[in-house]
Amino acid sequence: MAEPAPLSEEEQTALVTSDDPHHPANLICELCRNFYTLGWVTGTGGGISIKQDDNIYIAPSGVQKERLSPQDMFVLSHSTNTYLRTPTPLKPSACTPLFLAAYAKGAGACIHTHSHWAVLVTLISRGKSVFRIANTEMIKGIPWPSRKKYYGFHDTLEIPIIENTAKEEDLRESLEKAIQDYPDTSAVLVRRHGVYVWGDTVWKAKTQAECYDYLFQLAVEMTKLGLDPAGPIEPVTES
Amino acid sequence: MAEPAPLSEEEQTALVTSDDPHHPANLICELCRNFYTLGWVTGTGGGISIKQDDNIYIAPSGVQKERLSPQDMFVLSHSTNTYLRTPTPLKPSACTPLFLAAYAKGAGACIHTHSHWAVLVTLISRGKSVFRIANTEMIKGIPWPSRKKYYGFHDTLEIPIIENTAKEEDLRESLEKAIQDYPDTSAVLVRRHGVYVWGDTVWKAKTQAECYDYLFQLAVEMTKLGLDPAGPIEPVTES
Amino acid sequence: MAEPAPLSEEEQTALVTSDDPHHPANLICELCRNFYTLGWVTGTGGGISIKQDDNIYIAPSGVQKERLSPQDMFVLSHSTNTYLRTPTPLKPSACTPLFLAAYAKGAGACIHTHSHWAVLVTLISRGKSVFRIANTEMIKGIPWPSRKKYYGFHDTLEIPIIENTAKEEDLRESLEKAIQDYPDTSAVLVRRHGVYVWGDTVWKAKTQAECYDYLFQLAVEMTKLGLDPAGPIEPVTES
Amino acid sequence: MAEPAPLSEEEQTALVTSDDPHHPANLICELCRNFYTLGWVTGTGGGISIKQDDNIYIAPSGVQKERLSPQDMFVLSHSTNTYLRTPTPLKPSACTPLFLAAYAKGAGACIHTHSHWAVLVTLISRGKSVFRIANTEMIKGIPWPSRKKYYGFHDTLEIPIIENTAKEEDLRESLEKAIQDYPDTSAVLVRRHGVYVWGDTVWKAKTQAECYDYLFQLAVEMTKLGLDPAGPIEPVTES
Repeated sequence: MAEPAPLSEEEQTALVTSDDPHHPANLICELCRNFYTLGWVTGTGGGISIKQDDNIYIAPSGVQKERLSPQDMFVLSHSTNTYLRTPTPLKPSACTPLFLAAYAKGAGACIHTHSHWAVLVTLISRGKSVFRIANTEMIKGIPWPSRKKYYGFHDTLEIPIIENTAKEEDLRESLEKAIQDYPDTSAVLVRRHGVYVWGDTVWKAKTQAECYDYLFQLAVEMTKLGLDPAGPIEPVTES
Repeated sequence: MAEPAPLSEEEQTALVTSDDPHHPANLICELCRNFYTLGWVTGTGGGISIKQDDNIYIAPSGVQKERLSPQDMFVLSHSTNTYLRTPTPLKPSACTPLFLAAYAKGAGACIHTHSHWAVLVTLISRGKSVFRIANTEMIKGIPWPSRKKYYGFHDTLEIPIIENTAKEEDLRESLEKAIQDYPDTSAVLVRRHGVYVWGDTVWKAKTQAECYDYLFQLAVEMTKLGLDPAGPIEPVTES
Repeated sequence: MAEPAPLSEEEQTALVTSDDPHHPANLICELCRNFYTLGWVTGTGGGISIKQDDNIYIAPSGVQKERLSPQDMFVLSHSTNTYLRTPTPLKPSACTPLFLAAYAKGAGACIHTHSHWAVLVTLISRGKSVFRIANTEMIKGIPWPSRKKYYGFHDTLEIPIIENTAKEEDLRESLEKAIQDYPDTSAVLVRRHGVYVWGDTVWKAKTQAECYDYLFQLAVEMTKLGLDPAGPIEPVTES
Repeated sequence: MAEPAPLSEEEQTALVTSDDPHHPANLICELCRNFYTLGWVTGTGGGISIKQDDNIYIAPSGVQKERLSPQDMFVLSHSTNTYLRTPTPLKPSACTPLFLAAYAKGAGACIHTHSHWAVLVTLISRGKSVFRIANTEMIKGIPWPSRKKYYGFHDTLEIPIIENTAKEEDLRESLEKAIQDYPDTSAVLVRRHGVYVWGDTVWKAKTQAECYDYLFQLAVEMTKLGLDPAGPIEPVTES
């Protein structure tokens, strides 16, 4: 495919300039402030990307996520896989290949967190390549695409866990394999690292990221209390 | 009862438009932001409803609770049980039948949270249909209607636990039975799901929701430390 | 002592009206918002009082502590022990007699929290009427009046624990006895209830409340990890 | 070296007066508010310093860290080791000698926190003069100067732990020895006290402080779950 003529500086600036708070460049800044207070993106960790039409907006690497400005955003053309905007001197997110794997599945936004709960859930799932939780209301926030519905209270939710790699971009192959093995999943846990979550829209991605994080926290707290997150509902034997 | 003539669009908008920050449509937005930071309504979970005269205001289903605007509110007539306002394209809260069960008891507002503490308390109450806590100052924030007073420090507070159902609206029957069995309760826990709390006014409902959540957290932390939340006060044997 | 002529409504309003953010009526509102986010005063629990000259400012009972306005403040004359301002229809704080006990000791401000950490610390101090912690940097924030210095890193800090009573005002006698038995203390824990902390000024009271709460949290976390908060420093045996 | 003529009051004020939010005097105030909500600097504990050219800006001792104003800042000349500005009646930070030890290593900013996680990590490292953690993504946020790169996922990060002293300034000698023994470290833990973290710039110092705190929390939570923070990655044996 022939590469398009590069955008002028004005055109590049226009890509990330809008009065609309829901414009991807603005929304990424606002959501990152939100995620910082949740402990998801401290230490410049984690990331977020939103796709609008053919444009993929991505927060840069190695910056204070709670202090982003719209001018910090990278913009990538989905169809040509070329950058429309590369704000000097920032570096593109190392998550970019992972985000693209989600977009290849039809996602509209992708969130990567280093939440302690996500990391701890991969550690309590010792020696296993999947985390399981069942019989929990918040499972209902997770879509089950092949059945065209959401998970139900009594379903067991399975989230694949892939092993971490020395370089973040090297996760792509195993992430793609996990997506292949778990075609209904909208999240992949990375052992001792965090989680990737995606959704059809930015709001669905955010909702699902919050539901997953809630479930991870619940599973860790249940484990501390000697309870099995994937265990059955105990019968009521006394009032 | 004959249904009233439907409201015009102007009349519907007027229902949720006010400069008064204490107007139910405004207050629900503000309280939901508060509840989001408390972890009660993440992932679009949870809900809140306020009754003013005959009008019941209810936050919609499946939306970012910390980003509500007054225009998002459903309004239901209590006397006719018909919607006065159904903001397109939002969906009414699945909690609505549960909120109505509280209003049938004379409540002025109802709060539903997915707080981890509420869920964990139903899990440490293994095999039991009631959660008990005693000898705690914060119990004093909970009303005891049949005695026309509040619970006292030495009283044992009992909160019924009902089993969760696949669909939220199907909880109504067991919630009503729990209210019947525990006529003094202002909260019902739902196993592996959360809690419904109501009060005479929105402020009483909020206060009670905070007191209950405080007590749930205390009970979970006591359990982690090997202490029984409903146990007796130990005698002082050394200084 | 002859009671002074009651203040006019204008004079009463003037007592709590000021543009100075450090005016007690303003500061109480701001600090209560701060304390709410710390989890110290949820469910309308807890309280705060500041003394300026002869006037004692006290937040009312049973209100949303994070939503106070200066007009909500009670003002009490220290010298005459009569209310200069009783904002209708609010109720004076049940903590008032306890605050007065601190003012009798020369305090300039008093803070009462229901912090979970305070309550849990009284529960891990099973059967004891004192909580002890030693060898912790943050102990240095606590004054030791009889020695005209602050506690040192190697000192053991002792905070008396009194037993809770059915009515908050009935705590006064045992609180006064605890102050008598521990003349250097600037805090008294109340079992299964919370803590009272006071200081020479509002800022010292706030600092000390934060230091105590920090120490309580540390002690609870140490206990969860099998460590004794009052234990000795272990020798270093390996690098 | 001859001491420079002292600055006039106007010159001293000019040192801390700027409209630029990134001016050290402004940034220290903003970051301290951030650190307060993270629980790093409650009870007037902790501290921060930023070096700009030859000027070292330091937050004062014993003040509410979340309520600092630029006028509260001390300014020290690095080259002459004399104060350019000593705002009456504030006291210089007891951390100053420790900050200077970091500046002697070439740091551009230094952060001292009393985070519970830092203190707890020194307590779970019983009898050891070093804390170790391995196989964790967030290790990648920590620079490894002698190798001119950052730590990698599979590396074991070692952070020296020094013993606390009665007076904060007396830590300098052992802090300097720790820096000598661990020439690559950008943090020193102080047992039962907290942590000192520094970086080439204020943003690097903040990023590293957040990464370290994240790792400390993870290590404490792993210990609660019976896992070894420095342990190997377990092989996957089941899906």
